[in-house]
Amino acid sequence: MGSIVAENRKNLMLFSGRAYPELAEEIGQALGVAPTPTAAYDFANGEIFVRYKESVRGSDAFVVQSITSPVNTWVMETLIMIDALKRGSAKRITVVLPFYPYARQDKKHRGREPISARLIADLLKTAGANRILTVDLHTAQIQGFFDGPVDHLFAMDTLAGYVEAKYGDRALTVVAPDSGRVRVGERWTDRLGGCPLAFIHKTRDPLKPNQVVANRVIGEVEGRTCIIVDDMIDTAGTICKAADILFDSGAGDVIVATTHAINSDPATERLKNSRIAEVIVTNTLPITPEKQFDKLTVLSIAPLLARAIREVFDDGSVTTLFGGLS
Amino acid sequence: MGSIVAENRKNLMLFSGRAYPELAEEIGQALGVAPTPTAAYDFANGEIFVRYKESVRGSDAFVVQSITSPVNTWVMETLIMIDALKRGSAKRITVVLPFYPYARQDKKHRGREPISARLIADLLKTAGANRILTVDLHTAQIQGFFDGPVDHLFAMDTLAGYVEAKYGDRALTVVAPDSGRVRVGERWTDRLGGCPLAFIHKTRDPLKPNQVVANRVIGEVEGRTCIIVDDMIDTAGTICKAADILFDSGAGDVIVATTHAINSDPATERLKNSRIAEVIVTNTLPITPEKQFDKLTVLSIAPLLARAIREVFDDGSVTTLFGGLS
Amino acid sequence: MGSIVAENRKNLMLFSGRAYPELAEEIGQALGVAPTPTAAYDFANGEIFVRYKESVRGSDAFVVQSITSPVNTWVMETLIMIDALKRGSAKRITVVLPFYPYARQDKKHRGREPISARLIADLLKTAGANRILTVDLHTAQIQGFFDGPVDHLFAMDTLAGYVEAKYGDRALTVVAPDSGRVRVGERWTDRLGGCPLAFIHKTRDPLKPNQVVANRVIGEVEGRTCIIVDDMIDTAGTICKAADILFDSGAGDVIVATTHAINSDPATERLKNSRIAEVIVTNTLPITPEKQFDKLTVLSIAPLLARAIREVFDDGSVTTLFGGLS
Amino acid sequence: MGSIVAENRKNLMLFSGRAYPELAEEIGQALGVAPTPTAAYDFANGEIFVRYKESVRGSDAFVVQSITSPVNTWVMETLIMIDALKRGSAKRITVVLPFYPYARQDKKHRGREPISARLIADLLKTAGANRILTVDLHTAQIQGFFDGPVDHLFAMDTLAGYVEAKYGDRALTVVAPDSGRVRVGERWTDRLGGCPLAFIHKTRDPLKPNQVVANRVIGEVEGRTCIIVDDMIDTAGTICKAADILFDSGAGDVIVATTHAINSDPATERLKNSRIAEVIVTNTLPITPEKQFDKLTVLSIAPLLARAIREVFDDGSVTTLFGGLS
Amino acid sequence: MGSIVAENRKNLMLFSGRAYPELAEEIGQALGVAPTPTAAYDFANGEIFVRYKESVRGSDAFVVQSITSPVNTWVMETLIMIDALKRGSAKRITVVLPFYPYARQDKKHRGREPISARLIADLLKTAGANRILTVDLHTAQIQGFFDGPVDHLFAMDTLAGYVEAKYGDRALTVVAPDSGRVRVGERWTDRLGGCPLAFIHKTRDPLKPNQVVANRVIGEVEGRTCIIVDDMIDTAGTICKAADILFDSGAGDVIVATTHAINSDPATERLKNSRIAEVIVTNTLPITPEKQFDKLTVLSIAPLLARAIREVFDDGSVTTLFGGLS
Amino acid sequence: MGSIVAENRKNLMLFSGRAYPELAEEIGQALGVAPTPTAAYDFANGEIFVRYKESVRGSDAFVVQSITSPVNTWVMETLIMIDALKRGSAKRITVVLPFYPYARQDKKHRGREPISARLIADLLKTAGANRILTVDLHTAQIQGFFDGPVDHLFAMDTLAGYVEAKYGDRALTVVAPDSGRVRVGERWTDRLGGCPLAFIHKTRDPLKPNQVVANRVIGEVEGRTCIIVDDMIDTAGTICKAADILFDSGAGDVIVATTHAINSDPATERLKNSRIAEVIVTNTLPITPEKQFDKLTVLSIAPLLARAIREVFDDGSVTTLFGGLS
Repeated sequence: MGSIVAENRKNLMLFSGRAYPELAEEIGQALGVAPTPTAAYDFANGEIFVRYKESVRGSDAFVVQSITSPVNTWVMETLIMIDALKRGSAKRITVVLPFYPYARQDKKHRGREPISARLIADLLKTAGANRILTVDLHTAQIQGFFDGPVDHLFAMDTLAGYVEAKYGDRALTVVAPDSGRVRVGERWTDRLGGCPLAFIHKTRDPLKPNQVVANRVIGEVEGRTCIIVDDMIDTAGTICKAADILFDSGAGDVIVATTHAINSDPATERLKNSRIAEVIVTNTLPITPEKQFDKLTVLSIAPLLARAIREVFDDGSVTTLFGGLS
Repeated sequence: MGSIVAENRKNLMLFSGRAYPELAEEIGQALGVAPTPTAAYDFANGEIFVRYKESVRGSDAFVVQSITSPVNTWVMETLIMIDALKRGSAKRITVVLPFYPYARQDKKHRGREPISARLIADLLKTAGANRILTVDLHTAQIQGFFDGPVDHLFAMDTLAGYVEAKYGDRALTVVAPDSGRVRVGERWTDRLGGCPLAFIHKTRDPLKPNQVVANRVIGEVEGRTCIIVDDMIDTAGTICKAADILFDSGAGDVIVATTHAINSDPATERLKNSRIAEVIVTNTLPITPEKQFDKLTVLSIAPLLARAIREVFDDGSVTTLFGGLS
Repeated sequence: MGSIVAENRKNLMLFSGRAYPELAEEIGQALGVAPTPTAAYDFANGEIFVRYKESVRGSDAFVVQSITSPVNTWVMETLIMIDALKRGSAKRITVVLPFYPYARQDKKHRGREPISARLIADLLKTAGANRILTVDLHTAQIQGFFDGPVDHLFAMDTLAGYVEAKYGDRALTVVAPDSGRVRVGERWTDRLGGCPLAFIHKTRDPLKPNQVVANRVIGEVEGRTCIIVDDMIDTAGTICKAADILFDSGAGDVIVATTHAINSDPATERLKNSRIAEVIVTNTLPITPEKQFDKLTVLSIAPLLARAIREVFDDGSVTTLFGGLS
Repeated sequence: MGSIVAENRKNLMLFSGRAYPELAEEIGQALGVAPTPTAAYDFANGEIFVRYKESVRGSDAFVVQSITSPVNTWVMETLIMIDALKRGSAKRITVVLPFYPYARQDKKHRGREPISARLIADLLKTAGANRILTVDLHTAQIQGFFDGPVDHLFAMDTLAGYVEAKYGDRALTVVAPDSGRVRVGERWTDRLGGCPLAFIHKTRDPLKPNQVVANRVIGEVEGRTCIIVDDMIDTAGTICKAADILFDSGAGDVIVATTHAINSDPATERLKNSRIAEVIVTNTLPITPEKQFDKLTVLSIAPLLARAIREVFDDGSVTTLFGGLS
Repeated sequence: MGSIVAENRKNLMLFSGRAYPELAEEIGQALGVAPTPTAAYDFANGEIFVRYKESVRGSDAFVVQSITSPVNTWVMETLIMIDALKRGSAKRITVVLPFYPYARQDKKHRGREPISARLIADLLKTAGANRILTVDLHTAQIQGFFDGPVDHLFAMDTLAGYVEAKYGDRALTVVAPDSGRVRVGERWTDRLGGCPLAFIHKTRDPLKPNQVVANRVIGEVEGRTCIIVDDMIDTAGTICKAADILFDSGAGDVIVATTHAINSDPATERLKNSRIAEVIVTNTLPITPEKQFDKLTVLSIAPLLARAIREVFDDGSVTTLFGGLS
Repeated sequence: MGSIVAENRKNLMLFSGRAYPELAEEIGQALGVAPTPTAAYDFANGEIFVRYKESVRGSDAFVVQSITSPVNTWVMETLIMIDALKRGSAKRITVVLPFYPYARQDKKHRGREPISARLIADLLKTAGANRILTVDLHTAQIQGFFDGPVDHLFAMDTLAGYVEAKYGDRALTVVAPDSGRVRVGERWTDRLGGCPLAFIHKTRDPLKPNQVVANRVIGEVEGRTCIIVDDMIDTAGTICKAADILFDSGAGDVIVATTHAINSDPATERLKNSRIAEVIVTNTLPITPEKQFDKLTVLSIAPLLARAIREVFDDGSVTTLFGGLS
């Protein structure tokens, strides 16, 4: 009569924030598990309330939140969801952030700035998150901002597979839209079998911060199909300007491949009106109807996320499955 | 040549979030110090950027943020402002929150809920806040959610002084709009010299959560001027219903005194159309033009906050100055 | 030969402090598991020593301590027991505190006071507690003082079931003994099917802190059987004074229902000598023989605690089982 | 109007627990500062309440608590005092513990024991202590249990000065009462100019834990004046037994020098009735009248503590002043 | 479709640092599990890189590192290995340190010194270690430096078994080489059935720190076989001097039994050239060929470590198995 | 007699590790303060001991350590120095790391790797560091690894000033030696008034990790003086290969400008034998005599560090002084 012994089982439960429930549904279908019924709504002044309708005690919880606009609302909802899981005795809490918010503020560009990407990691930890699962961080160093395991998935295979199938017979050049993304471009050239690499060199006046005085293409683009690769499209200003310079420099065609389609205004207008032939993105963020246009191709990230979640739950190797995963 | 010795001075700097800059200005004028020039704006997807235009190194920093709607945006901005101060080497960071957000979620009302008021305290601590200065917490226990000093100011003196001057010659009854605010009502009766106390008793069906089946007044209200006291007005539903019951029970007149005027839709409409004679509030939250109406009286909280900030800076006693302060 | 794989079982172990071993025994019998044999004694100067006589490695440990007088001794014993479990490699440590100590100091009533209820939560965390299981907190906000799951059980069902059975045919009025307990009284009126609610209004001189100058009953009590409800009886001063005022106001009969029977001197004397007909309590705290008297009815809290412990161990839902549990 | 600049002064405030206020008074007189007026009392169930009667904001606070019996009460009071200082915005909190409680439980002697001395350090830290000032720790390693500065003072100079003056012309042998204190004895022989050293060797049956089967003296004691040195006297059992063996081994005379006079029952009786000529202690713990007897000499520790507090406040070197201080 | 339920298994994985892979191999053979293949190398400037070649997700990881010279390199490698396990989602990380580094700096001997042994414990915790398993700490208090379970194994049984078998028929005296090790010596006398105990008393000039002016033997050694017992041999200076004094005092023979054979230069030379008959050690640290000599006997610590690891994995009792284990 | 009030002064103290004392001396001369006398040495097994010879109580401490080979030794020494300052009651501890160790391991390049640069930040924090002052981090994101202020200085002004003065009349092209450093190269082109930018594109076989199959220059280099810019030279393999390709591509001349001269073997040999005309570095790391050669120009970083330390001590703006500082 010294102790009660029982078998120790684990159970995977999926939770969806309100930012983009369709993605969580899609992941859930791939996994064979529905998101847990949840009451979530805003009070009149905008304060968020969350309550789970089923017991979460002892669960291996995966909270899926695709942090689109309004960003701060969904960040706060994520934190509140984590808190409710922690206080409801979930055993382990993994936050699935297909798009990591505030990733661009990953350092102090000048004095007296915050490092908001680190702040986000600390907030998640404080609320009670044990692990993060995310896709294509703006810089891979953000992994190190979180004090715990971060599974960092890459969408390149998904995007490059599509590009290869459709444009594999063209004379391709990979183009980094600015000097900070050349390393990413290089990874694409390797993936595409060693094609040329170019980038847009911006010249700034050191006395006037952030003021670009000239852009020029460095690398071989004349007569070639240029693939501009980037982690995200926000207002599409940089990318459309890059496309213009490429055409000015004699590019045959320009396509764009990017993971995160933030596509804030006036991105859709700009891209539609540009000479870019095709814009290929994933659905790490919701592509609402008004963001859709003919040249936009959306590939689903859900299969990748579902497989990663399953591996995490099963203590399998995420690295070996997805190659690029670190 | 063993060390360099210098005098150790302290300097108070004031920082204002974007939620309600007018209040910070007013506090600054009372203190004789302008809010530090700050660049703060939203990126296209809503991510917030903050940068201080002057050195904050070694400062005794007071960040004033009046967390109105959109609540989550201003919470995040506050956290980001604190992070920028911490990384910019401010010496001590006091967050001045005239209205503490998420205060109503100060416990789990049922299972699997968050305790968001505690979460807010932890987020502020994680970002780097050393102290909190706030007014009329929804429940005083929230002080204990923060691991550090909380200076808790009361607006009752400001509100009651006005009530006394204007209605002191009437036969007054203090009314708590629900059973949870009776203790606060009792403090008002003491402050007003011992007038009667009443409250609205709600009956709920225990099998249908949150469903009120009846309201009745308990206490002496017939023919008297009833002052409904509460910490906040949100949609004004509870308060207007309380006023109706009071009139139904024979009240001579009804006025309302409350600290935080959230006044979410349709509060203004409801209050305007009610038989309530006057609604007295403070400006812990901004009263935008569309929230104003004839019967609304707004008293400024800035003098109280300015005096508290000065005492905190000077290491004076906040308790002795303001009586009710704990 | 890469790794050794084994089945992962969990085992519930029960540990009892010395404050009230009979309660732990009773819980253990309900669960079918005896408290783990433990050597615990005081050194000559009062320092406490604890050692478990069986291995606790990997256990799901429940430490039952009913913190009666001498309160500080049992708080320290609890902390020492937790430390010994942590260092002995227990897997998870749940502290079962039927009565949460220092709950009344849950805020700074005035300046320069501690918030001892938060301190207790932090001390438990520091020693190594992962979870708390408790009954009828003085204020529900104390849940938020602990950084982790708190299962908060309610004794109202136990107490009200008894009241209903015995007094259900009387004309009942629920009475809150002071303004701060009216909300609790309201919950009782709902549970008892909507009977009237009253409370004792105390008037204080604002210039003389804590000095009550008058008490009066607010609500309908004449000719009715009044049930004073409270979370705890300490010296019974407030409750006996309330009973007197109720009788003075024409109450037909007065009974008392309360969860925690601290019953410090001279509570027993006072209650015995009062006109109160019956005092109904639970045994969250030990009722030593000298605390017993004819009118005292003690209901056991052990079945409720045993069921909650079992659900926590099994990762079942505590919320759905006990209704009121949050 | 960018900031308010003020001189940054520091002010030393002294706070006394209720365990031994006379010592704090004596320290205060040496420093020229009175303990801050404080309301401290027990509730009926033994819960402690503390409130400072003057503002502590910004102070350099020194909390003096001499943790005598009832040990757990004074530990809790110390923690509560620290919490009240932290929440009252004291700038730095130094806990002055002339006797560090639970020092003997500084390791697991066997499995499943706590390490209570580390627990005490963690509790102090959690409550808000920044520094510790203490005298003659049972083992010096306890310094490392606290995550912060520990000023460790030695009473040997005080005690040895007295011994030298009174017994310097005798043929002295320093005696360690057990094998674990031989190192301390060696320090005494150095301080007394190189006299002989002896110790009491206990033989235990390895199959019966803690059962001593024989004691013998190792070292030269015949015809000599033996000084038994130890950090504390608790029940005086070990020391009186040691004295007996010394006399049995031919010792000419036996005196005892020890820092902490816990002197739990039946220490006074035992020492009085023993053949020990003189027992020399300090007042790190209160020597109540019933603990006094003819052969007991009490030296004051207050001058040492006052000088250390002053140096800590002035950022002077504690090491150089007191020699033995580490 | 609410959740995916799976069996929760646990798997033991062994990881070996580069300091002494042979010991990890030996432990692995005893356990029946090979150390996990690992890429570990130094960059040109000495920075260490580690990568595991197999998934560690969900594992119960045991990192074996025997911290020999260069000590700091192996400490850093251990920390880096732990970090890689934490970020690779190991479930629990136990660091197996047969020799705990920096154990001698377990207190401030004088002012302004570090407490490096506590620092090591904190660094291990920060990197992500959950538990420590170690052998014969320099002082047992070091257990309390780590905030978590420490399994402290003793090599005395292994060493004393050998001594008893070989020298059991001699007239033995256990000798502590200095006053701080007398307690350890006493444990040996108990283990060896109650033989005499002696120690070397050093006299220091209190005005010249650390300067020993004389050594003498206290206790009965004449004509006896003296066993000098200590936790470690570093340069063997103390031990060889002790042996000389013992022979000078008439010892018949001298042998040495010690757990940790650091054997820094010129230990080997000194021991070889001494009159010591046999030096018995364990292999908690590697005994490289140049450290070997005829009189040196090395007993393997691997069986003890393997059994402890297995018990920890199985949640068995380490205490009961090994007797001396605390 | 309520408190002792004193002026609060601050005093800057400088502490030097043993890695490169000449740099600390040079900084000290620029500041007018000598490094504090310190005893630091290795025990026979390599354990480090540190003790300060003067009181550090209350100091604003700056620990200068230039982490050259053996890297791990100096990292540990830095941690031990910080611990000794913390325990010796230093008021604030700033670690001055001209070269941040393990900066290249700032992310998981593949699965199951550590993030050592984050680990270093956490170790510094754990030991007690409050702030970091460093030069040219490998990636600026490392700032975000430390939970506190990081002052990040740039050597570009120092290096570029020299380059401009000497080579300003040449036709310059800035060259990034790999795709990850193009952004840094772009900053140089801005600083040098808008000259062209080129980089070396490496092609890798995706199936064979880390295996480069081809290098080519992208950008305009023919007939121009190419300045290869990088944050560090380790073995100089990448840089020398880059120089070869540049000459192969028609470069007129090649010079190298880099902040950190790790210059591990065989860097010196390679650079001496290369066709590179000049290698310009700073002394963030010591340039020992065997690392010197004719073409090597060393610029001192001490003036920059001294000015930054002084500004930090004076709470001045580091940002405005040095332009590039963030």
